[in-house]
Amino acid sequence: MATGKTYKSFQYRNNLVWDTARRGRTSAPDKPDIEIGSPPEFKGEAGVWAPEEMLVAALNACMMLTFVSFAQGKRLEFVAYESAAEGLLANVDGKYRIVEVSVRPIVVLSSEADIEAARTIMAEVKANCFISNSITADVKLAPQFQMASDVPT
Amino acid sequence: MATGKTYKSFQYRNNLVWDTARRGRTSAPDKPDIEIGSPPEFKGEAGVWAPEEMLVAALNACMMLTFVSFAQGKRLEFVAYESAAEGLLANVDGKYRIVEVSVRPIVVLSSEADIEAARTIMAEVKANCFISNSITADVKLAPQFQMASDVPT
Repeated sequence: MATGKTYKSFQYRNNLVWDTARRGRTSAPDKPDIEIGSPPEFKGEAGVWAPEEMLVAALNACMMLTFVSFAQGKRLEFVAYESAAEGLLANVDGKYRIVEVSVRPIVVLSSEADIEAARTIMAEVKANCFISNSITADVKLAPQFQMASDVPT
Repeated sequence: MATGKTYKSFQYRNNLVWDTARRGRTSAPDKPDIEIGSPPEFKGEAGVWAPEEMLVAALNACMMLTFVSFAQGKRLEFVAYESAAEGLLANVDGKYRIVEVSVRPIVVLSSEADIEAARTIMAEVKANCFISNSITADVKLAPQFQMASDVPT
């Protein structure tokens, strides 16, 4: 008996125009443009998003959005979510690639009783985040759960 | 005899703060913040960069910046560079991931004599772009080369 579920596919469009030296302007339909370019260590400028930073940002956000989606599905409410991420660009066999991204989310909850549910949801995030599934880097997820009452205001 | 070249590694940091519903604010040191969130097809809002769009933008820009770097190395001058890219998010074995990204750069050159050099450089771009090396998607690169004299002003 076939139990296969049918999934839709989606397309994401981007446009890019070279500006000068090692930078350009990237755009997506109906979104604000972003200046993008090589980072200073590769002869670019500081103050402009680098592709490497965008990849790390995409992963960090995807993991948060996956958490938000699963939390909503399980009716878990949370007070705040903040996450620091760091990607490591290293040369492997003569080619540079992002080999590792560490993601350290801090989820603030209103009740001790929610910690277990939050932990369970977070354990599902990495395997279900679309960007995590799309990159070759080793993704290290190290979540922390805090009580709202313990967070200084 | 050891001929190994030593390569440096680099770190790229990101910070993310959840805002409301399925969106947040992503930041990198000294760069303008970007609103990021789920796309409308995953219960998010239009007008906010989605992680999927950021991944496609990162690849598109990385390929341009690799081209710019190689062109500079070979003293090839070009007049303009524009590139449309499209990423396909599809479900494979129950998990969504970006399975394919097509990148269609248009490079405008001032002389017919530069086409061959530009073509040779572009052929090296995919294998050397850091982001291309960091993702699992099938990257399809379809460049076009135009003469500045043929481009309507």
